[in-house]
Amino acid sequence: MARWMQRNRGLDVYMQISDDEKFVLRPDLSFKQVREYALDNILDFIALGFEEGKTHIIWDTEVASWLYPLSLKLAKRVKISELKRLTKIDDSWNIGIAYYSAVIQSVPALMMEMELNEPYRAIIPMAVDQDPLARVAVLLAEKIGVSKPSMIHSKFILGLNGEPKMGTKDPSSAIFLSDDPNVVKEKLERSACGPPERCPSLSYLRVFEPDDDVFFNLWELCLKDPEEGCKACKNKAKGILVPFIEEHQLRKREFRDKVEDYLMGEPPISK
Amino acid sequence: MARWMQRNRGLDVYMQISDDEKFVLRPDLSFKQVREYALDNILDFIALGFEEGKTHIIWDTEVASWLYPLSLKLAKRVKISELKRLTKIDDSWNIGIAYYSAVIQSVPALMMEMELNEPYRAIIPMAVDQDPLARVAVLLAEKIGVSKPSMIHSKFILGLNGEPKMGTKDPSSAIFLSDDPNVVKEKLERSACGPPERCPSLSYLRVFEPDDDVFFNLWELCLKDPEEGCKACKNKAKGILVPFIEEHQLRKREFRDKVEDYLMGEPPISK
Repeated sequence: MARWMQRNRGLDVYMQISDDEKFVLRPDLSFKQVREYALDNILDFIALGFEEGKTHIIWDTEVASWLYPLSLKLAKRVKISELKRLTKIDDSWNIGIAYYSAVIQSVPALMMEMELNEPYRAIIPMAVDQDPLARVAVLLAEKIGVSKPSMIHSKFILGLNGEPKMGTKDPSSAIFLSDDPNVVKEKLERSACGPPERCPSLSYLRVFEPDDDVFFNLWELCLKDPEEGCKACKNKAKGILVPFIEEHQLRKREFRDKVEDYLMGEPPISK
Repeated sequence: MARWMQRNRGLDVYMQISDDEKFVLRPDLSFKQVREYALDNILDFIALGFEEGKTHIIWDTEVASWLYPLSLKLAKRVKISELKRLTKIDDSWNIGIAYYSAVIQSVPALMMEMELNEPYRAIIPMAVDQDPLARVAVLLAEKIGVSKPSMIHSKFILGLNGEPKMGTKDPSSAIFLSDDPNVVKEKLERSACGPPERCPSLSYLRVFEPDDDVFFNLWELCLKDPEEGCKACKNKAKGILVPFIEEHQLRKREFRDKVEDYLMGEPPISK
């Protein structure tokens, strides 16, 4: 969706790679590991076709030289009590999660207006479970007197097992951009079948198939002849997802030395 | 005292300039102002004669590129509840103070052993009111399995008004390194007089006069003839402090472009 807005509305995309959050949330991950995941995430984004020059990647631990000083301007304005009111955080949480949630995650949404004194409106496309964090950013925007960011909540793609949400805990429930194309094929073949509103393949096609007719014809087929419909959905999904994944992985390798060009190395500073 | 240990025991001195703390603690100060104070503080330290090469200045907002990532390793280990137990912080405090107190201030004391895997013992000379913060560092040292830092609590120099503590709220209660030498003279002349244990001039001389005989002769004189004693203490203090301040301010100007040489620009990394 962010890519669509960039292409069709010419918007700049600021993308925060929060390896700091992952590190303080996950006791099992080392600092080195979260940094490796971060790089991989960045390559995924670039390979998805975000435009150079209009895509500004904020890799938290890589750009701390300006991200941390900017975060102080927000940290000064949030009380621990406010953070508790807006999020699930209580005294048993570690202070790293608290600082990230209160401050670091709000910087990209607010920094442009905060530092440049020019009106900006940030739009944050996100999954609904991230909403409490965005509410902290809204509170901060009010306090420092800049425009409040707007949130657009995305729906989840169904899990391959038919559950309403994919989970990283069960790798078979989702297709990963890093999956081997043969594994993608297998996962789709073995995926759940059900009424169209519970069909994982249709859920993927809703994202990857721009032609409404194709999509709703499959939907109808599922209603009329569930067995044929299921086969057709899976085949269509394979036909789109497998080459997509193949190409994506190829592009990812090509972009390996282009990361610097997308990284937001300097803070926003008025000219 | 830190300088004495560096000169006489050959120790490396790590000096944290916490402009981030000042900024989140003081609603009235801008980011630009705390940065200016920080630079001035650094020049004070260098002018006091700390040795280049064995003095590592950690200017928080200047070295955030490595200080913030290192701080995450500690932030992961402190719960908000632990912070509250050890310090005065409660839910009405802002999250910036909490993060600084829990984490940032502990980095210099723990980072050498944490990152280099070599045993180090940090000694922290400090005023007793900073003790709660150091207790957080001790807790963290236990948790991450490195040597606990040791604290040496310094006594306060008496206020010029005879109070047990100088206060920045009342500029006439203290001599500042930035005071004009004539102001220093006036401040000492007008300073309180009392029994030797309550004499501000003697309190200063205890720091600046290395000769015990000189010091205790003045003490005795104060007991025998309070009026003469008071005059003698003030004169002796003026004789030492005024040229000290003059020289200090001269050296400070000379060192203006040497700050970089003392700054710890790189994190501790094992070879």
